[in-house]
Formats: sequence, structure tokens, C-alpha cells
Amino acid sequence: MKFEEQARAYRETIERYLASIYASFGEEPQKPIFEAANYSLLAGGKRLRPMLALEFCRICGRNPEEALPFAAAVEMIHTYSLIHDDLPCMDNDDYRRGRLTNHKVFGEGMAVLAGDALLTDAFAVAARAKLPEPGKIGEAIAILSECAGSLGMIGGQVLDIMSAQRACTEQEVLDIQSRKTGRLIVAPCVLGVIAGNGTEAQKEGAAGFASLLGLAFQIRDDILDVIGDAGELGKATGVDGDKNTFVRLYGLSSCEQLVKDYTARAIDCLKVFPDPSFLTELALSLTERKN
Amino acid sequence: MKFEEQARAYRETIERYLASIYASFGEEPQKPIFEAANYSLLAGGKRLRPMLALEFCRICGRNPEEALPFAAAVEMIHTYSLIHDDLPCMDNDDYRRGRLTNHKVFGEGMAVLAGDALLTDAFAVAARAKLPEPGKIGEAIAILSECAGSLGMIGGQVLDIMSAQRACTEQEVLDIQSRKTGRLIVAPCVLGVIAGNGTEAQKEGAAGFASLLGLAFQIRDDILDVIGDAGELGKATGVDGDKNTFVRLYGLSSCEQLVKDYTARAIDCLKVFPDPSFLTELALSLTERKN
Repeated sequence: MKFEEQARAYRETIERYLASIYASFGEEPQKPIFEAANYSLLAGGKRLRPMLALEFCRICGRNPEEALPFAAAVEMIHTYSLIHDDLPCMDNDDYRRGRLTNHKVFGEGMAVLAGDALLTDAFAVAARAKLPEPGKIGEAIAILSECAGSLGMIGGQVLDIMSAQRACTEQEVLDIQSRKTGRLIVAPCVLGVIAGNGTEAQKEGAAGFASLLGLAFQIRDDILDVIGDAGELGKATGVDGDKNTFVRLYGLSSCEQLVKDYTARAIDCLKVFPDPSFLTELALSLTERKN
Repeated sequence: MKFEEQARAYRETIERYLASIYASFGEEPQKPIFEAANYSLLAGGKRLRPMLALEFCRICGRNPEEALPFAAAVEMIHTYSLIHDDLPCMDNDDYRRGRLTNHKVFGEGMAVLAGDALLTDAFAVAARAKLPEPGKIGEAIAILSECAGSLGMIGGQVLDIMSAQRACTEQEVLDIQSRKTGRLIVAPCVLGVIAGNGTEAQKEGAAGFASLLGLAFQIRDDILDVIGDAGELGKATGVDGDKNTFVRLYGLSSCEQLVKDYTARAIDCLKVFPDPSFLTELALSLTERKN
């Protein structure tokens, strides 16, 4: 199957699974919270993280759909982080993916709760995974939580806020972005390997690939904030002017090269897998992305 | 050991374990988020939920300390819910347990993140539990998530907000409070039985006890909002005047009787356990509590 065709098939599987989550909760009186959660969860997006979980499961030799609970859990956590990030007391954004942000539609209180619900419910979804070795579910949950928690993504957000008033060193920017974006890309890759019953060496390969891809991804994001089209991005551009971005650190043309370098190093980590062609093309496609 | 003595021993064990969680994260640059989380997590309180986890583990015949990861996880989730509840876009409270609320000390953005961190990190702590049957960790995580998530506690908060402008029926108030308070009392009891390798019948007994105790607890809370002393409670009283409380539904004197009735029914569920004397005394002590 060609890359584009496989990617589309994965995306359809993922959309169907994501749509089934709150639908399966039925006709509860608190339905408005399911609607607020779904408004952001089902707003499209690249579905990069869940796609990584499915493909890492597949290249370890198992049915990629066995990684769906992990894939969905990571996307739910990613979605909650966007809802809370957009709040007036955080980034105070009105638009996300070309639509009004969650609190603009449902109000601030409901947006806080919708984020909390997606985060909490994600762990019930992840715990549903049927693993080849059921005892490994604890390890998977711990990795998911650590990548998303105060040692991972939330830690990165805090560092970002703390450093907003000063110019960071290169090492600090790398640390902030590794946590803020990187860890929630590491999680689906490693969880995909766990769902696929892969080896420890494959877990390490997946983590290495994900960390480097995460940096390439974030640098591309910083570039798009400067050169991107607001319409295509679905959000305002030029908003990162005084932030500690890679563009501010290295300048635009060095950043273009860095995206390529990190992506090449990421692809190099895939040696421990028998057939990394989809992941290779996926990584390369991200270097050129417009949104 | 006498009840009071045992309760104090449990509380000390719990405080020590809770204090060790963020301390074990070490000297990370994002340390301020650990401090914000600890400000609320280590602010005292009855530690009712973790105590229940430990005691249910013990009466199933195992060392109560084996339930500490579950006990702490539930208390972290309880704490996050208080931080987010107190936010200006929610209840907008300035005081909690006699101290300034989290956002009053650390600012709104940090309070949102501190809540998110406690909620996320709770699952990593829970996943650390060493169970007699390691395969059951998935079940435990699913129960924890469902009790706290949009089918549980968050669902109850949403129903509470949705019904704020109208008078609810008795059934509605019971449903709201069962979710809002009850489910996060059910979680530690059932997780305690899982940590203790108890039977299905014991899990059901624990869940029944916890649901009824949760109602008694909430009715006592509503009573204290009317007759309690703000100094002893550490928060403002008389604030629930136009809310759908049990006092508004039944009146004060009926509520006093209801607390006793629900507590008696809760204790009746403990028949499936060999030695429920501590839990019996704990339940009875809550009927008389002043804060």
C-alpha cells in the first residue's frame, strides 16, 4: 500500500474509534460534557500521535488496531492540553484549527471540565487495551502518565511560562520543547511497541525516533508561525515573536536545515525495525508540512 | 489497637507517602509546579479516602501499605478537583481548609496546571502498585478513571452546574451527589479490596458501603454549611443557600436522621468482611464531624 493510502486508512480507523468513545457512554444526563469534549476531540487534525501508535504496533508484527486504546488515549490527552492551553488564564486564544476554541463555545468553566474529562477518561480508554502480556498494562499507564505529567508535557508548559520573560539558552529551549511537545510523541511510539509486544531495543528505538521527530516537529511549528498562512494553519501566526522559539534562537534558514537534520537522525533510530518505510515517509512528510 | 490510635497511625503513614511523591521527582527546573501541587496536596485534611483504601486492603488480609499507591492516587485526584473547583471560572473561592486557595497563591494559570499535574501524576503513582495479581492493575486503573471521569465525579460537577438555576427532584440530587462525592469514595474502597486480593463479593460490599457512606458524608456537609463554624471548617459557610442541597430538599432535622440512616445501611454492607470494626467506627465518627 502506498504511504498516502495507508495514512488515510489509519486516519479513518482512528476517527471512527475516537467518535465511538463518548458515543458509547450513552444517554447520560451530563451529556453536555461529552459534547464539549467531542467538539475538540473530533475537530480533525493530523492524528499524528495515534497514527504513530498504530504503525509501531504493526511493525512489531501485530494487528495495528490492538494499539487503538493507547492511540486514542494519547490523542485525548493531546486534546485536553490544547483546551487548557487556550484558556484566558493561559494563552487566551480564540481560534484553534480554524474554529472557535472550546471556552469560546462552552464557557470557561465547562472548558476546564471538558479538559479534565478528556484527561481522566483517557486512562480508562488506555486501560482497556488487550495486551499480549496483560501484566504490561501497568508499565504502559506509567509511561503515558509520566510523558503527560509534571515530569513531561506539563513540566514543559511550566518551564515555558517561567521563561517567558527572558531569553533562554539553547539547552533550555531544547529541554522545554523536548518536554512540551516531545514527550507526548514519545508516548504513542513506545506504547505502540508495547501493544505490538516488541523488544526493549525496539522500545528504545521508538523513543529515540520520537524524541528527535518531536524536535523537528516543533522547529517546523516555529517556522510556520513566521512564514505560515493563518488560513491554512487555522490559527493566528506571528504570535510567538517574543517567545523562546527555535527561530529566535537560530534564525529561519538554520531552522530549515535543523528540521532536516533532526528528521534524518530520527529515521536512523528505526534500524531496529524490519520495515520502517511508512514511518520514514511520515517523518519526511512532516518536514514539508504547511499546517 | 483503639480506633483513634489506628486512625492516627494510618494518617501518619499517608502523610509520609504523600510527601514523598513530589520529593522523589528531585531537583527539576520545573520545581515550582511541584511546590504548587504540594501546597494543596499537603494541606492536611481528614485523609478519609486514603484511609479507606488502606483499611479495605487490611481487612482482606494483606499489609495495608500495599494499598498506598492507590490511596495516594485517589487523594491526588481529590486534591486536583478542589483546586479546579476553586478557580474563578468555577466556584471562585478564596479560602480552603483555612488557607488561601491555590490560584490565590500561585495565580490562575499555575493553578490550572497544578490540578492537571496532580490528576495526571496520580495515574503514574497508581500504576506503581505491586498487586498480588499484577494483571489486575488494568482493572484498578479503569475503576479509578471511571470514578473520577465524565461518568463519575466530573459528570456530577457538570450536573451540579447544569441544575444551578432550578430546583431539582430528590432523584436528581441523589444522582448528582452520588457522582460528585460518592464515586471518589467508592474508588479507594474498591481499590483497597483489589490491593488486598479480596473477592468479587467483597468488592461489591466495599462499593455498597462507599456509596452509602458518600451520601451520608455529603448530607453532613450540607448540614455543616448551615450550622457549621467557618473557623472550624476553614471555609465560608452559608454559601450553598440557592444550591440543590439535601438541606433544601429535606430540611435540617430530617437530614440529621438521614445521615444516621445512610450510615447504618453503609455499615450493613460490611458483613462480607471478617473484622469491620475500624470501618464501622470510622463511619460513625463521620456522622458527628464538625469539619
